[in-house]
Amino acid sequence: MNNHIEKVFRDPVHGYISVNHPIILKLINTKEFQRLRRIKQLGVTSEVFHGAEHSRFEHSLGTYEIARKICDYFSNNFRTQSTNDGLWDNNECLVTLCAALLHDVGHGAYSHTFEHLFNTNHEKITCQIITNPTTEINQVLKQVSLDFPQKVASVINHTYPNKQVIQIISSQIDADRMDYLLRDAYFTGVNYGRFDLNRILESMRPFNNQIVFDISGMHAVEDYVLSRFQMYQQIYFHPTTSSMEIILSKLLQRIKDNFKNNKPIDNSLVKPLEPFLNENWNIKDYLKLDDQLLNSCFNLMTNDNDPIIADLADRFINRKPFKSVIYNDKSINNLDKLKKQIQKVGYDINFYTDTNDTFDYPYSQDNEITFINKDHSTVKLSKLSKLITAIINQKVGEKRFFFPKELLSNDDLFKQEKNLFNTYIKNGHILES
Amino acid sequence: MNNHIEKVFRDPVHGYISVNHPIILKLINTKEFQRLRRIKQLGVTSEVFHGAEHSRFEHSLGTYEIARKICDYFSNNFRTQSTNDGLWDNNECLVTLCAALLHDVGHGAYSHTFEHLFNTNHEKITCQIITNPTTEINQVLKQVSLDFPQKVASVINHTYPNKQVIQIISSQIDADRMDYLLRDAYFTGVNYGRFDLNRILESMRPFNNQIVFDISGMHAVEDYVLSRFQMYQQIYFHPTTSSMEIILSKLLQRIKDNFKNNKPIDNSLVKPLEPFLNENWNIKDYLKLDDQLLNSCFNLMTNDNDPIIADLADRFINRKPFKSVIYNDKSINNLDKLKKQIQKVGYDINFYTDTNDTFDYPYSQDNEITFINKDHSTVKLSKLSKLITAIINQKVGEKRFFFPKELLSNDDLFKQEKNLFNTYIKNGHILES
Amino acid sequence: MNNHIEKVFRDPVHGYISVNHPIILKLINTKEFQRLRRIKQLGVTSEVFHGAEHSRFEHSLGTYEIARKICDYFSNNFRTQSTNDGLWDNNECLVTLCAALLHDVGHGAYSHTFEHLFNTNHEKITCQIITNPTTEINQVLKQVSLDFPQKVASVINHTYPNKQVIQIISSQIDADRMDYLLRDAYFTGVNYGRFDLNRILESMRPFNNQIVFDISGMHAVEDYVLSRFQMYQQIYFHPTTSSMEIILSKLLQRIKDNFKNNKPIDNSLVKPLEPFLNENWNIKDYLKLDDQLLNSCFNLMTNDNDPIIADLADRFINRKPFKSVIYNDKSINNLDKLKKQIQKVGYDINFYTDTNDTFDYPYSQDNEITFINKDHSTVKLSKLSKLITAIINQKVGEKRFFFPKELLSNDDLFKQEKNLFNTYIKNGHILES
Amino acid sequence: MNNHIEKVFRDPVHGYISVNHPIILKLINTKEFQRLRRIKQLGVTSEVFHGAEHSRFEHSLGTYEIARKICDYFSNNFRTQSTNDGLWDNNECLVTLCAALLHDVGHGAYSHTFEHLFNTNHEKITCQIITNPTTEINQVLKQVSLDFPQKVASVINHTYPNKQVIQIISSQIDADRMDYLLRDAYFTGVNYGRFDLNRILESMRPFNNQIVFDISGMHAVEDYVLSRFQMYQQIYFHPTTSSMEIILSKLLQRIKDNFKNNKPIDNSLVKPLEPFLNENWNIKDYLKLDDQLLNSCFNLMTNDNDPIIADLADRFINRKPFKSVIYNDKSINNLDKLKKQIQKVGYDINFYTDTNDTFDYPYSQDNEITFINKDHSTVKLSKLSKLITAIINQKVGEKRFFFPKELLSNDDLFKQEKNLFNTYIKNGHILES
Repeated sequence: MNNHIEKVFRDPVHGYISVNHPIILKLINTKEFQRLRRIKQLGVTSEVFHGAEHSRFEHSLGTYEIARKICDYFSNNFRTQSTNDGLWDNNECLVTLCAALLHDVGHGAYSHTFEHLFNTNHEKITCQIITNPTTEINQVLKQVSLDFPQKVASVINHTYPNKQVIQIISSQIDADRMDYLLRDAYFTGVNYGRFDLNRILESMRPFNNQIVFDISGMHAVEDYVLSRFQMYQQIYFHPTTSSMEIILSKLLQRIKDNFKNNKPIDNSLVKPLEPFLNENWNIKDYLKLDDQLLNSCFNLMTNDNDPIIADLADRFINRKPFKSVIYNDKSINNLDKLKKQIQKVGYDINFYTDTNDTFDYPYSQDNEITFINKDHSTVKLSKLSKLITAIINQKVGEKRFFFPKELLSNDDLFKQEKNLFNTYIKNGHILES
Repeated sequence: MNNHIEKVFRDPVHGYISVNHPIILKLINTKEFQRLRRIKQLGVTSEVFHGAEHSRFEHSLGTYEIARKICDYFSNNFRTQSTNDGLWDNNECLVTLCAALLHDVGHGAYSHTFEHLFNTNHEKITCQIITNPTTEINQVLKQVSLDFPQKVASVINHTYPNKQVIQIISSQIDADRMDYLLRDAYFTGVNYGRFDLNRILESMRPFNNQIVFDISGMHAVEDYVLSRFQMYQQIYFHPTTSSMEIILSKLLQRIKDNFKNNKPIDNSLVKPLEPFLNENWNIKDYLKLDDQLLNSCFNLMTNDNDPIIADLADRFINRKPFKSVIYNDKSINNLDKLKKQIQKVGYDINFYTDTNDTFDYPYSQDNEITFINKDHSTVKLSKLSKLITAIINQKVGEKRFFFPKELLSNDDLFKQEKNLFNTYIKNGHILES
Repeated sequence: MNNHIEKVFRDPVHGYISVNHPIILKLINTKEFQRLRRIKQLGVTSEVFHGAEHSRFEHSLGTYEIARKICDYFSNNFRTQSTNDGLWDNNECLVTLCAALLHDVGHGAYSHTFEHLFNTNHEKITCQIITNPTTEINQVLKQVSLDFPQKVASVINHTYPNKQVIQIISSQIDADRMDYLLRDAYFTGVNYGRFDLNRILESMRPFNNQIVFDISGMHAVEDYVLSRFQMYQQIYFHPTTSSMEIILSKLLQRIKDNFKNNKPIDNSLVKPLEPFLNENWNIKDYLKLDDQLLNSCFNLMTNDNDPIIADLADRFINRKPFKSVIYNDKSINNLDKLKKQIQKVGYDINFYTDTNDTFDYPYSQDNEITFINKDHSTVKLSKLSKLITAIINQKVGEKRFFFPKELLSNDDLFKQEKNLFNTYIKNGHILES
Repeated sequence: MNNHIEKVFRDPVHGYISVNHPIILKLINTKEFQRLRRIKQLGVTSEVFHGAEHSRFEHSLGTYEIARKICDYFSNNFRTQSTNDGLWDNNECLVTLCAALLHDVGHGAYSHTFEHLFNTNHEKITCQIITNPTTEINQVLKQVSLDFPQKVASVINHTYPNKQVIQIISSQIDADRMDYLLRDAYFTGVNYGRFDLNRILESMRPFNNQIVFDISGMHAVEDYVLSRFQMYQQIYFHPTTSSMEIILSKLLQRIKDNFKNNKPIDNSLVKPLEPFLNENWNIKDYLKLDDQLLNSCFNLMTNDNDPIIADLADRFINRKPFKSVIYNDKSINNLDKLKKQIQKVGYDINFYTDTNDTFDYPYSQDNEITFINKDHSTVKLSKLSKLITAIINQKVGEKRFFFPKELLSNDDLFKQEKNLFNTYIKNGHILES
């Protein structure tokens, strides 16, 4: 039996994830990889879509599984026969699979928000975890060859010489995106993210140092682009998610400010955060953090002495999102009037208001998806799909202003201020002045 | 618009969960209920089925949703017309919905294991959370009437006078079980748990103080019983899950032992556990615990001074399950021989071995499901289904012995002991002596 | 039990179809309605998507089921309280359900092609079947009231006074379209047609003599519009489907021509077609025809004396579609050159070539979908969705030229002609001259 | 590109069906194979489950697709290395695929009923179609080698020397059964038939001249056995389906009787049936028949002069099933009393009543499914699964008596007889006398 299977993981999105190579199984069993179980794929999104508790651990396995299918398909059908024929070099499989599996291993606790506050960078940290000799991952990779960790890291930072390998991990249609769209759709429970993965995989072709798609898969690819667009609009840019991220960001900012001003929180609580507050941390410090630890800290902070810390922690842990309204270039002038009323009611507007704009190009011409005709001529997606032509380079999204929900009630002392506040708002939009 | 909808939650299992009553929305927004987000529905099962990260929060919403559908269906179709006609009393809807939503609110961190070690009881605690005046849940329920909390609690402890209400929450086919079977199947990614919820719901009938099923729904009910059986066999009784529970249990036991023997772990870590170690805790202490807090503690304990604590915490946090083998009444005699080798290798067998038997009656005659014929005569499921007749009262399951995985390797000092150990095992079973 | 259910049909798309009114069950059991079992929903499409064998019978039941859900939802939530409040009049339910069920009952054998050749019109015939006293359907409808058949017919021909009823049956988002998109997607096996029916249904509102949608359902409606567009592009406009329709059309044309020229086909075969060939038919003649009868005739015609009849029948019955190439305003000039070669090879170009253009507006501003805000102001879809704004009024589709597949081979006598033919074609397009 | 794909068919059950070998594509395009489009997979079942319009054409493609996956999997993983190693011989792929594709090609119009009346046998006819030099299928198969048709036929009649090939096509878990269970479940819309095809396929192993299953796939196989059982109980043995088959059988019997008695039906109608009525038919006659032709004949027969023919044809075409009641060894004595009343009402009991028993062994010990342990020892399913042990050799099913629905009404002349008739029946069972 030539194709020994090491282990099979049951997976709701792909059915099964098959691990055939012992190195992959060993990587999964490292503590740095197991840590991804304690980091949610979508951060605070589960506060809005309660099914979205899925972890980066399973997304990483899923990305690996898609990469494995691509490698298998290429190896069986498009294996290089001679130098420079532009086909798939079978020796690239293992580095591709390792890069796919590990591409997110540097993600930390509530990454996107945390990075912003503490100047960390999950991509760089991913490469460090892979190349730093103190990690279990590095130990495992070195069993392949001493330069193998560096090779895997170079796929992730896009410097690897074989561009096909890079495109499998990172491009308009890569294993990463395909897995997270399907997975996020599955766990949030929306239909929009579902596209025809198998059809797309069977359309993929290695061709002249890049990955192209057979023309017969055009509609499946078009549907993928639309799905991605719909997921952005409805899940990733959901205003309540943004609202929870803002609360988290404000809370971390306050902790940072207090730390600088020598008004520390209960010492034992911030202990794991200290290296970051001191701006002097290493990989080991970073790997101690995860979503669960931060949540546990925040939970205890709901009894903090600083009322702003205590209140923001309560809003975050017990899900009391800010509300938001849409504004535009004409109504932006009213923002200050809104903030003024919020301040009058007693809120520190530095910690209780924020703006946010979430814009996306559903499909941009910079990095087009390429198709291959029967005669091996190539053509871009926007030349094939009328629907894509219609949306190419169209920027879509909205600008929002966030504030405490309490402003919308009018049953207390600050009735007058709140009433005034509400006169600037209609159907979820700030009125143009 | 008479039927105002307060809020809609997107749910992967039911599509949407509709909240039409303001009391329900307020209950969801209490901190005791939000805490369920931090408690996994299936505890350590996600270590085996990585998709199973779903929380008791969403299961509680799902149970509410099924109960809501039953109440709506009964109210529209089987509303009581005269006393003692055995039909549905519409005034019971709100108490039913509240009980459905709150039935698991007393679940704690890794409940089943924790209860065993610390003599807590999640059902009793559920009733306490509902009736204790310090909780937000109690405050909300009292807005209905002063005795309403007690009413809801009496549904949960089965003393409520209307037995139909109790059966909707707790019986062979209740809202709780139907939601968890579907939900656990969805998130683990298995097919077995899928049965025809809509068909079952449309077969339900209030009848003479109980809930029965229309005869036309027999096959859907039969399929539900089979699904439940398959889920037990394949998910709930999975040996690796049992293995992780045993590690957790041993770890908590060791913490308890050390505490009693005045060899405490780093103080700040066990702080939230202290009231339980002292056997002197209250609801407030209980509500501070959740899976994430315990995980965060265990994570730090991987550096503990007690090598057994540190090692068990590492096995738990970094997923290094014990292995297991099946034994029976004939091979049980060899257990001691296995333990002896384990001890020789250097493991304390009190913390590194355990036995476990997981047996279930797929369907028992004590509590049969009742069907109603067109002429209003009733008949039990086992009289209708040949398949159920075949399995009624049949006990199925297996006995397993757990031990460290290291025993199965033979690449070190203890080669001789390990080889001897393995001579007693064949194809996952202990040999009969 | 107030809400007696007459009958439940298992349905792959909706799970179950519930018939609660005896009139509906009687209509289903009429022979005119049962005849729809022998007419495929998508005509020749099953020659391309082999799963698409589903009948107009089940689509009609599905349309009824969606209409039933809308009526139930409106009756429970938006029932009119006073004249002119613009809400739903519960007395309209039965006429709505009957119109939904019967809206396609006038469809005939391969309707679209047949109508074109024989000047029949399935909408008019639907109304005739409903109002003609010789039909079983008319007999059943008259059991409601003598003018009830006319009422149902007036919904179908859009003259019914209550516009909400008409919109449920026929509008941008009606019960008919929603059922056929979901059903055609299910049976062809594509993903594209799947949208969130429940979400759309729960967004529907009767409002001021029309049907509008709650603003919260915008993304579900947007997804429906996209689904519809994708279904047109990939299923309804599939070139091989068009090709089979063209063969059918040419075959019927030839039969017609021969009949006029007194060169009749084997008499017994055309018997059921005779009234149509004589342009003198009645409802009874029409109802004798179905897809199966035509297929049986064509099957026998594969042995006809007229070689064109025999050959076209063989192509139709044994699935030998014409091939096609795309042309545009610049390459249209080459059409005659292509036809010339086809003629040289020996084909009568009147029966062996054709052109066809399939264009669609994915969404047009003429008949926009309307949403309602919380303050009861209304807004059009194109003002809400950037994606819809991008595609509104954009005409998409293609022009194709059809010809026998044999032209593409070059292994016979006519090698020279065929080679010349192929010089005008590249990658499926006619070259611009 | 080594693995050239000839054609891809979109399929609702498998996603896609891939044809890589030109012989397979040519076989699909033969007229004998295309004819399967006009024969429904489940005969009259669509009268009960309206979605079940799927054809034997698509089931045959699906069976081929599963066989293709098995062959691919075996070829990639278990290819024979030396004579008698019991592994898979790659040279067997094409014969396996052809046999899978063609295994049902001899099915005729409403096979099971037709065979019974006219002593045809679809399995024998399948072999004849394959080996008879007048068929297109035979012509295509001979392109492989002159003895290839005979080889394919010998797989189907179980005489082929390689038993692994036979088992892929025909055994407890073969490509045929796996496809029809999944497909019939999909098109009827029930959940029960859904099992984990991929898991089963990945568990299959060629081993010592047979096919076995890896022990890790046990639960998937167990679930398949249960699914099969549930499909029999709920779909294949549905009493209304049996009822429609009985009407069809009685109708054909009457046609046969009249023909023998020189009371022929309108000549042109029975023309295609004549060779069978004369008991003198050949393959060409057989291939002219399909479900659609029979339906077209029956449709015209609704106006036949023989009132029994006309009435039975009307019941069949316009779906007026007989009703049925269950009887057992004790109540069988009352059958004659029921028949007597039916006769009194005026029905010829030879054509208007029948009995039928549908029994099945969900799993029998004669032909057990075999699993293989890690140490290559084997074990039977019933030794592994407690659920299967419980049902092995248990015969389940029921005996039913069929009669015209009119007997259950009591609104006419025969009130007395009908009342008496109904006194023998309770809750769908004949009373024990």
